[in-house]
Amino acid sequence: MMNSINHFLSQSAKGMKRSAIREILKLLQKPGMISFAGGLPAPETFPVDDLKEIAIEVLEKEGFFALQYSTTEGDPLLRKMIAERHNRQGLNIGIDNIIITTGSQQGLDLIARIFIDPGDYVLCGLPSYLGGINAFLSYGAKMKGIPLDDHGMITEELEKSIITLKDLGRKIKFIYIIPDFQNPAGITLPESRRIKIIEIAEKYDLLIVEDSPYREIRFEGQAQQLTYGLDETGRVTTLCTFSKIFAPGFRVGWVIGQPAVLDKIVVAKQTADLCTSAFVQRILARYLEKGLLEKNLPKTIALYRERRDLMLVCFKKYMPDKVTWTRPEGGLFLFVTLPPGLNATSILRKAIDNNVAYVDGSTFFCNNQGHNTMRINFSYSNRDEIEAGVERLAMVIRNEINTN
Amino acid sequence: MMNSINHFLSQSAKGMKRSAIREILKLLQKPGMISFAGGLPAPETFPVDDLKEIAIEVLEKEGFFALQYSTTEGDPLLRKMIAERHNRQGLNIGIDNIIITTGSQQGLDLIARIFIDPGDYVLCGLPSYLGGINAFLSYGAKMKGIPLDDHGMITEELEKSIITLKDLGRKIKFIYIIPDFQNPAGITLPESRRIKIIEIAEKYDLLIVEDSPYREIRFEGQAQQLTYGLDETGRVTTLCTFSKIFAPGFRVGWVIGQPAVLDKIVVAKQTADLCTSAFVQRILARYLEKGLLEKNLPKTIALYRERRDLMLVCFKKYMPDKVTWTRPEGGLFLFVTLPPGLNATSILRKAIDNNVAYVDGSTFFCNNQGHNTMRINFSYSNRDEIEAGVERLAMVIRNEINTN
Repeated sequence: MMNSINHFLSQSAKGMKRSAIREILKLLQKPGMISFAGGLPAPETFPVDDLKEIAIEVLEKEGFFALQYSTTEGDPLLRKMIAERHNRQGLNIGIDNIIITTGSQQGLDLIARIFIDPGDYVLCGLPSYLGGINAFLSYGAKMKGIPLDDHGMITEELEKSIITLKDLGRKIKFIYIIPDFQNPAGITLPESRRIKIIEIAEKYDLLIVEDSPYREIRFEGQAQQLTYGLDETGRVTTLCTFSKIFAPGFRVGWVIGQPAVLDKIVVAKQTADLCTSAFVQRILARYLEKGLLEKNLPKTIALYRERRDLMLVCFKKYMPDKVTWTRPEGGLFLFVTLPPGLNATSILRKAIDNNVAYVDGSTFFCNNQGHNTMRINFSYSNRDEIEAGVERLAMVIRNEINTN
Repeated sequence: MMNSINHFLSQSAKGMKRSAIREILKLLQKPGMISFAGGLPAPETFPVDDLKEIAIEVLEKEGFFALQYSTTEGDPLLRKMIAERHNRQGLNIGIDNIIITTGSQQGLDLIARIFIDPGDYVLCGLPSYLGGINAFLSYGAKMKGIPLDDHGMITEELEKSIITLKDLGRKIKFIYIIPDFQNPAGITLPESRRIKIIEIAEKYDLLIVEDSPYREIRFEGQAQQLTYGLDETGRVTTLCTFSKIFAPGFRVGWVIGQPAVLDKIVVAKQTADLCTSAFVQRILARYLEKGLLEKNLPKTIALYRERRDLMLVCFKKYMPDKVTWTRPEGGLFLFVTLPPGLNATSILRKAIDNNVAYVDGSTFFCNNQGHNTMRINFSYSNRDEIEAGVERLAMVIRNEINTN
């Protein structure tokens, strides 16, 4: 037997690290564990009964279509349903502005594939979604983190970084934004700042990649238009997904973009996986056509609002002074800041010993900061688990503060 | 609006070409068209009734699991069912030797991602599956084609090419083989030659990527073991799929390999699409568990045997002299050779005008040869279409011979 495959590996594979989050998730199978770690939707929100009915209908009436290869662009009916839904929310797009991806993670991968050469820069928030950062890194991108304030990416800092990089002769390809209930920070970009980011992209000839999985999970406040809808320059490409508003188990996302961009994404997708499952696409298309997303989504939002509220109450009740946390208007996460000097990565092991888990925030910082932060998911755990989990976590943190 | 996105594109995207096959498939929607172009399974073979029952069962009994994220490695039950099935066929593997991919096309993409740096060489048959070649090219591979004889890749030619490339200082990563009913040539590697290829890989320190979508679609002759099962060196990684033995619409394939290789593939898959649909994976797992694949597959094979036989009869009946074709023992394709000087690419347009289509064979030659060849699919069309389609195609070819 060969000793090692290392000398066969590509540069990209040599640098590959397992996703910290997905590795943590594997530790959490043990009974009694309360996990605030994953970004998992609550299974109670999955429309099991609706799907039973639709799966039967699709198999009976259009089984031959649903079990065959799809086109790479995706099921035309699903793309139509998605475009119409966006247009009802204020966009003005056609099915040529939409292609279906195998989850929005595939959208991130394909975007990276068509735009990034090794050494190209991507600008992202500090912090930003790890799956985005990792997708860009795997194509050799250099990440430059931009600090956030309470309204998201600080545009003065963004512009400063662009100027500095350009002065150094670096090639910047795009700005990566997660504008609504940013993962992990929970922050939403107001419209004015979205417009400012578009202006900066225009001024310095950059693209914008908008990653928007949570926008519709809003508990309060004013709904925001997609940045795509504010853009008249053609610079924005937007990634969406059914994972949080429907169910992740279908692996269906979509990309909204200019035909010239989508054209390249389609070719990239041909070699990536040919097409996304026709079966799940057609079931989803019929689900949308019947208006079931509009019927079910408010229940999901109500449940998550209740869980966020309880999470906030429990944090207030149990957490020691000097720990602070966000109050997100939507999405799935609180972002927690511990007193300086505490290390959320080392605390995580103790937390897991005490049957509670989270993701250490530093994972989301491309510049190795944020070691005193943690991301806390509130969508997955039930009321009892939220209360017990926060109590356990507070105890672990208090011990850490006392021994620090 | 921006004029062009070209200056943002990666090197890889600049070189991207749409898959000729998938572009041809789009032309074929017009009524009356008989298509021998795609590699489409016959929808009559899709187990619609079985799936109705299982979809209901899965949603009722394990809907929360099936609609949630899966692990990146894939549904443990599906991996177990696949491993057990392979072991019944003579392998000796565990679930740690299997990961699930979004179709075997994703397997090709992930293999390319972990092994290929720009400029690395991949050795493949002349001809070979276009989706494989394109996946490798998209990571910057250089393809070196090896001629085939009636038993597949000529191992003396393989060794000669390796020596030449090594002498030139080129880095070769792997040999790409499609050992059973090779797409498009229909040829099967006998066991002795598989062993010889493994010996060559061992001698020159190369890997072997075995792409095996058709092995179980055998009409006659002796079933072959996977090359993976003949290998004691750990150099073979094998790609399989449910697309041809079950249905393509689920997009489920799997990779068989050494844990060290699969470990890298899993990390690559985390950024590619996180995981394959848990819903389709669990339905497939239950389908296998109930023994339904063993029940249904013989019917699929019988149908395709009948269609191959009819295709051969019609070719004999209609084709002009000097046209030759293969008699494959399995798989989905005949491979046709026209008299030298005829160009199957230009004939294709005339064929489509006459409502019959195929894929021009040169598409599958990485060295731009094979312009007088065509790939003919016999799995998708019914009896009447096969007869009418071959008659039309023969007429187009005869006209071409007469005017040449």
